[in-house]
Amino acid sequence: MTFNIIRSARAVLHVKDLDASRTFYEALGFVETESDDEHIYYRGLEEHNHHSLLLKKGDEASVEVISYKVMSEADLDQLASLFDRKGYKVKWVEAGAQKAIGRSFRVQDVSGIPVEFFSKMDTVDRMLQRYDQYRGARVQRIDHFNCMVSDVQKAYDFYTEELGFKCSEYTSSDDEAIWAAWLHRKPSVHDVAFMNGDGPRLHHIGFWLSDQLSLIHACDVLASMGYVDSIERGPGRHGLSNAFFLYLRDPDGHRIELYNGDYLTSDPDFKPIRWDINDPMRQTFWGHEAPDRWFNEASLVQNVYTGKTLPLQEPTLKKKKPTFII
Amino acid sequence: MTFNIIRSARAVLHVKDLDASRTFYEALGFVETESDDEHIYYRGLEEHNHHSLLLKKGDEASVEVISYKVMSEADLDQLASLFDRKGYKVKWVEAGAQKAIGRSFRVQDVSGIPVEFFSKMDTVDRMLQRYDQYRGARVQRIDHFNCMVSDVQKAYDFYTEELGFKCSEYTSSDDEAIWAAWLHRKPSVHDVAFMNGDGPRLHHIGFWLSDQLSLIHACDVLASMGYVDSIERGPGRHGLSNAFFLYLRDPDGHRIELYNGDYLTSDPDFKPIRWDINDPMRQTFWGHEAPDRWFNEASLVQNVYTGKTLPLQEPTLKKKKPTFII
Amino acid sequence: MTFNIIRSARAVLHVKDLDASRTFYEALGFVETESDDEHIYYRGLEEHNHHSLLLKKGDEASVEVISYKVMSEADLDQLASLFDRKGYKVKWVEAGAQKAIGRSFRVQDVSGIPVEFFSKMDTVDRMLQRYDQYRGARVQRIDHFNCMVSDVQKAYDFYTEELGFKCSEYTSSDDEAIWAAWLHRKPSVHDVAFMNGDGPRLHHIGFWLSDQLSLIHACDVLASMGYVDSIERGPGRHGLSNAFFLYLRDPDGHRIELYNGDYLTSDPDFKPIRWDINDPMRQTFWGHEAPDRWFNEASLVQNVYTGKTLPLQEPTLKKKKPTFII
Amino acid sequence: MTFNIIRSARAVLHVKDLDASRTFYEALGFVETESDDEHIYYRGLEEHNHHSLLLKKGDEASVEVISYKVMSEADLDQLASLFDRKGYKVKWVEAGAQKAIGRSFRVQDVSGIPVEFFSKMDTVDRMLQRYDQYRGARVQRIDHFNCMVSDVQKAYDFYTEELGFKCSEYTSSDDEAIWAAWLHRKPSVHDVAFMNGDGPRLHHIGFWLSDQLSLIHACDVLASMGYVDSIERGPGRHGLSNAFFLYLRDPDGHRIELYNGDYLTSDPDFKPIRWDINDPMRQTFWGHEAPDRWFNEASLVQNVYTGKTLPLQEPTLKKKKPTFII
Ligand SMILES: [Ca+2]
Ligand SMILES: [Fe+2]
Ligand SMILES: [Fe+2]
Ligand SMILES: [Fe+2]
Ligand SMILES: [Fe+2]
Repeated sequence: MTFNIIRSARAVLHVKDLDASRTFYEALGFVETESDDEHIYYRGLEEHNHHSLLLKKGDEASVEVISYKVMSEADLDQLASLFDRKGYKVKWVEAGAQKAIGRSFRVQDVSGIPVEFFSKMDTVDRMLQRYDQYRGARVQRIDHFNCMVSDVQKAYDFYTEELGFKCSEYTSSDDEAIWAAWLHRKPSVHDVAFMNGDGPRLHHIGFWLSDQLSLIHACDVLASMGYVDSIERGPGRHGLSNAFFLYLRDPDGHRIELYNGDYLTSDPDFKPIRWDINDPMRQTFWGHEAPDRWFNEASLVQNVYTGKTLPLQEPTLKKKKPTFII
Repeated sequence: MTFNIIRSARAVLHVKDLDASRTFYEALGFVETESDDEHIYYRGLEEHNHHSLLLKKGDEASVEVISYKVMSEADLDQLASLFDRKGYKVKWVEAGAQKAIGRSFRVQDVSGIPVEFFSKMDTVDRMLQRYDQYRGARVQRIDHFNCMVSDVQKAYDFYTEELGFKCSEYTSSDDEAIWAAWLHRKPSVHDVAFMNGDGPRLHHIGFWLSDQLSLIHACDVLASMGYVDSIERGPGRHGLSNAFFLYLRDPDGHRIELYNGDYLTSDPDFKPIRWDINDPMRQTFWGHEAPDRWFNEASLVQNVYTGKTLPLQEPTLKKKKPTFII
Repeated sequence: MTFNIIRSARAVLHVKDLDASRTFYEALGFVETESDDEHIYYRGLEEHNHHSLLLKKGDEASVEVISYKVMSEADLDQLASLFDRKGYKVKWVEAGAQKAIGRSFRVQDVSGIPVEFFSKMDTVDRMLQRYDQYRGARVQRIDHFNCMVSDVQKAYDFYTEELGFKCSEYTSSDDEAIWAAWLHRKPSVHDVAFMNGDGPRLHHIGFWLSDQLSLIHACDVLASMGYVDSIERGPGRHGLSNAFFLYLRDPDGHRIELYNGDYLTSDPDFKPIRWDINDPMRQTFWGHEAPDRWFNEASLVQNVYTGKTLPLQEPTLKKKKPTFII
Repeated sequence: MTFNIIRSARAVLHVKDLDASRTFYEALGFVETESDDEHIYYRGLEEHNHHSLLLKKGDEASVEVISYKVMSEADLDQLASLFDRKGYKVKWVEAGAQKAIGRSFRVQDVSGIPVEFFSKMDTVDRMLQRYDQYRGARVQRIDHFNCMVSDVQKAYDFYTEELGFKCSEYTSSDDEAIWAAWLHRKPSVHDVAFMNGDGPRLHHIGFWLSDQLSLIHACDVLASMGYVDSIERGPGRHGLSNAFFLYLRDPDGHRIELYNGDYLTSDPDFKPIRWDINDPMRQTFWGHEAPDRWFNEASLVQNVYTGKTLPLQEPTLKKKKPTFII
């Protein structure tokens, strides 16, 4: 491989009411780098890049793109060449067209997910030691994307064989078809996960917290502000990934995961961990069921050329969720 | 009032398999003071009294009695006189008849709950600073009983007017009938709570933890030992009481609550807090629903004279659980 | 005893710069009930009384009074009678003379500490479940006073024999002279502690936190704001009391303790715990030494009649601090 | 660079009494993979490699070697070639000569530190989700080495220019001489740090914890077992690295750091953070001073050929510790 994708880097979400979004994301402790009438640029406390979450005012809630950072401009070119060779229509976005970010290219990936790659983003002051500014969940940094796609095997193959991702854990059914896979570039459990379902959709964006109590405090803060309906699932412990988690729905229904406690996956001799789809401890180590809407609802994604949301395709595997909760 | 009930002090539970119980309660971090073939005496880490939970081998799971500690032997006599005057049949248990405990009396209370009062229990070494012995949930001390009774108003009246309990918080419906009440002697939210339902039954025993993470760790420990089905509800934050909670079912189905984070209720000017029965944040501040079995299932209690479990009576108030989850 | 002192209730501190004080106490998460040019009234998150800390603008840093709440107006009169009988000059302060507080009396106690008793204080909304307002150390409530006095035995005798306080723990030297004692009315380790030293002085005011991480976060917040010199001692675990602690110095040098994790002391059979003055684990269970200024410095207290600060008297016991750190 | 050093991987320490060591390390929660009369092999809860800490019975306390894991056998050969070309005498250790580990080579590095590189170690079951086995500090994994060397600049140059390490943070004095540097291969703050002082010595080995309360609990556990003298410094927050830390001395005086809370350093645009040597918040963000022995004492290291401990050299920079604590 002649390119190095470093990590999941940012998401660009369309939201209908920036003020409503701001109230929600500020409660979680996101740092607002800057904003205007059409955009809010958020980052986590430890992030030195300009933003990891960009909210754009839009007519409907949707996902414009999810972005990965690559090591250098040369890596970016090599990666674009790969997509080109494989027959993908790469759309370049020149430097300056997007605030704070260098040139990038966007492409509909093998599952139809709109992905973007870039190597340069403006740097800003880290707030990691500005403890006086800590609020809510004390969000530290972006951690991963979770995508619902109609053919997980196909996504798995492309990301591992062509893009250099490694698998840390996966879920499969009795016939060993892959129902979901957790893939990483940085040595954590994942930068992106793919789950079987009506896709392409973005299921959630995971943000990393430094501790469990910040996550619990986030529940308390959101509840005290009237966001009870935003607390969708958790807090709980994932069996898969071992992370302590909380799933929230923002005012537009985009799902945010607060996440703490996975492990180092740096070594080539780490064997991907298999979970049976019907193991009740896979999703929640404590046996708790996820609510139906967690399985059924996700954010529509845009066509990178037209900006229109993509229609959904039926999943390859019939089971959309584990039998133990059906 | 010429007597002083100090606090909820211990519960005596019948269980079918002491070994199965021991595995469960040790995982939670209870300290075993002593045991024999028929009994296990447990206490929390900070407790200097011999036990706060007594498990007895029995043919069926039931509650023999829940016990309160009073200030002195004179208080005990005065309290017995009260029950006597009110027409209750008091059953004295002489000193020496129960291990580690002085003379006591038992009585079926106004709701049919088997209660016991004593003033003396053997003291033992506290384990509070034996951190090397801490395990699981690091249970600190007994905190409260929660009883399901058919007429909460009647229980409320007797405990507040005759026994000197004070109300910290309560739940009522639109017509102001009391659906549940939290009553205390020690200046915490409660030593005992009464909830409307098929009664008399013991809904759960609450044990106090010193922190939230011990409670989360308890989930992890229990799950890793295969006790997923024992994790019934939570972790979550109660709206009512503000406590961080976890409800567990022991191997016999007795319900144990791990509990942390209520507040000081020492002052006469503290006004009882009213919660509407249909306020979704009352039970779980974060809006989570309790499972049906949490509402419907509870431990049968014994007749203090015969040892037989008592039949259940229909509750006075029709709603057994809040409408928002019906 | 014909009166019931409920608990330590508030302190009145003179500070030289209210704005400087406000920046500090807000960082800790105190709730400002109200203020004017000469006063700031603070309370903790769970407190339903108007304030537990009153800062008054003054020419020098000093302690005007520390206040205890009693059960009723009748208790207040009985308590005043006791002081009167014992030859203390009681100074009544009529209702209305102090904001939010009913009539009270003040008196120089047996050690010269200016103490006040009252039964009524205005009630306000609790902020316990306004998690969106939580900041810094998330101070929950006032817990205790710690006084440096020249004759601990005398203070101990008066508070236990005349005022009805109970001893939870104490420090003594080889000859069993009491070097320090922890005394309570509410069933915690203490409402007031007396330590041997140049007195009368107020060593610190302890505020209760609900968890350890809020205390650690307080260090981070204060440090990020430039208050490194205010972090005097800790965080650490007290051997005596078992509490997790942090000692801070406010901008006037008044010492504030953040405190979490003591235990229930409700029972008459609880035996006071003796610590040897030279046991290194008494002060800090982990063996850490306290800095000299923690032993030597404390706030001067006022004469309740003149408002002048009192001169200091040499302590009865020669050792001012444990030998292991001398 | 034609080789990829993945991460710091294990340390081999000589200790005089394996039983004494076992009591200490078990208290911290290390997992014993296996042992015999001369060795104990420890790993952290999340580690899937056989061990990250090897204790060998020896006549004196010393460091046999610190080891790094490389990506493949080819990387290992390339790396050996580099050392060879640079004039270092590489000592190969064949597969089978060390339990659980493939072939490796050892070399005295540019500072005289005995380092080892290998690519293969046996894998074992992770204990990450065996929460029932968690004890003490719940050590998760090895994180870094800290070495005291006489010429930090020289070490910095070799590790960054020849071995591919990146600098996350560093300490320098007014004339910009580097007093200490934190260097990483995995994207954390460091795999190894070099500090100016009498060297070569191993100052400490850092182990990563998943949360702050496990670190505090470690203090409590060690104190309750009589290890008060082993608690050398902390708990505290490092300014540099932002980690929450605790320094312990094992029964032989080897220093172990428990460590939690640094940040992701994956990006090429992350600018190394400079700290002035006299900034009091560098070492402890809260301003606490480190004790003298923390600066002066460290473990002697062995000559990889003779097994003899190396003599110390005076440091290049005169200041051995920051002026603010001199
Ligand atoms: Ca934590
Ligand atoms: Fe996720
Ligand atoms: Fe309860
Ligand atoms: Fe104190
Ligand atoms: Fe370190």
